[in-house]
Amino acid sequence: MKNYKLIIEYDGTKYNGWQKQGNTKNTLQERFISVLSRMCDHAVSIHASGRTDAGVHAKAQVANCFCETEKTCEEMQRYLNQYLPEDIRVLSVCVADDRFHSRLNAVSKTYEYKISTVKADVFTRKFVYTEECCVDVDKMRRASKLLLGTHDFIGFSSVKKTKKSTIRTIHAIDVTDSDGVITISINGSGFLYNMVRIIAGTLFEIGKGAMDEAVISEILSDKNRAAAGPTMPACGLSLTKVYY
Amino acid sequence: MKNYKLIIEYDGTKYNGWQKQGNTKNTLQERFISVLSRMCDHAVSIHASGRTDAGVHAKAQVANCFCETEKTCEEMQRYLNQYLPEDIRVLSVCVADDRFHSRLNAVSKTYEYKISTVKADVFTRKFVYTEECCVDVDKMRRASKLLLGTHDFIGFSSVKKTKKSTIRTIHAIDVTDSDGVITISINGSGFLYNMVRIIAGTLFEIGKGAMDEAVISEILSDKNRAAAGPTMPACGLSLTKVYY
Repeated sequence: MKNYKLIIEYDGTKYNGWQKQGNTKNTLQERFISVLSRMCDHAVSIHASGRTDAGVHAKAQVANCFCETEKTCEEMQRYLNQYLPEDIRVLSVCVADDRFHSRLNAVSKTYEYKISTVKADVFTRKFVYTEECCVDVDKMRRASKLLLGTHDFIGFSSVKKTKKSTIRTIHAIDVTDSDGVITISINGSGFLYNMVRIIAGTLFEIGKGAMDEAVISEILSDKNRAAAGPTMPACGLSLTKVYY
Repeated sequence: MKNYKLIIEYDGTKYNGWQKQGNTKNTLQERFISVLSRMCDHAVSIHASGRTDAGVHAKAQVANCFCETEKTCEEMQRYLNQYLPEDIRVLSVCVADDRFHSRLNAVSKTYEYKISTVKADVFTRKFVYTEECCVDVDKMRRASKLLLGTHDFIGFSSVKKTKKSTIRTIHAIDVTDSDGVITISINGSGFLYNMVRIIAGTLFEIGKGAMDEAVISEILSDKNRAAAGPTMPACGLSLTKVYY
């Protein structure tokens, strides 16, 4: 029984997110369990660095699973890519230390939220949120920097009252514009439920001039979800990197 | 009445090609005619640099149309992008000389054919042809160079006997490999029916070792379609540039 580390890419459009919870059907986790269990001829469980929500994509999700197999890592990768649907692709497979856990050992993660303010590129339109409008990207960038550091981010989340800590650290955040496609890139120690999508929604409102930059500090200090922008649609969000 | 030059991008997956021919439904040309005629309140006809076939994509198709409108070019672009479906995008609109004709004035065109020999990137999988296999890309590249210059390309086409010339010039051709995704890029004076797809199919057979490099010269001299490789599926083909 070895502990395998997988790096995975997926188009999350038609999945109900990574993790099977209650009666949720059609999760990415189930797809992996089914193919891996068939491959190993024993029940396999698999854990990812975090639960991406329904419709969210990943360019490099990391997962680990204990498997009993005679296949090499390359053979395992080929097998998975052959039997998984075409909107899921295993980018690499390697043997990790037995103590490696994709979620518990993750030091930070980077997410990207993409907004097209012009009609989206026809080839990538399913992976951005499109809203044709004028935005001040410099203002979004300036406002984004107010999120840097360690704060209680509950105001930027869909988390209800909880006993768990809602304090997280944002190590890096940037807003860039490429021909009208805005990318909000955030690296942080961890993210609360809907946190990236609400941060993106708030920065987008600021960019459109519908909210003031000062709202960021207010939401952080007042922990007031109602003062923040909308939860942006899942299609624009991708998990792009997990650091260990 | 001014002559407008449009540069257009489209995901051709669900269209029956550019041109309305006989009873063909759902062509790109029809979509443009319908939106332009509504915009101008007069019947508009539009011509492209060439007919892309059903399922073929374009990164920069060029078309021209005579319109009577008070809109500026930017307003016209915005209008078109607003009313055309999301798999079609107008990249630019400008006023051309009255004598400009997108097809007759085209000096050369570049097409790209993409083959993924590994499981395709989940984000671009609809724009490549995927066949997991081993290929010798250097051999494909060497063989491709035999196509350079002016030849009768009827053996590399689906053209039946014709009185029209089947002589064309290939100015540049290259085969590149990026992580298992092979791109065959061809610039030529013009292309016969299915010519790029049959060239791609022949080079692919050579790459897989199923055909010999020498077959290229044989097909050119014998004008024998049967000796060439298969017509590759439309999904891998894109018109990428038209030169005037």
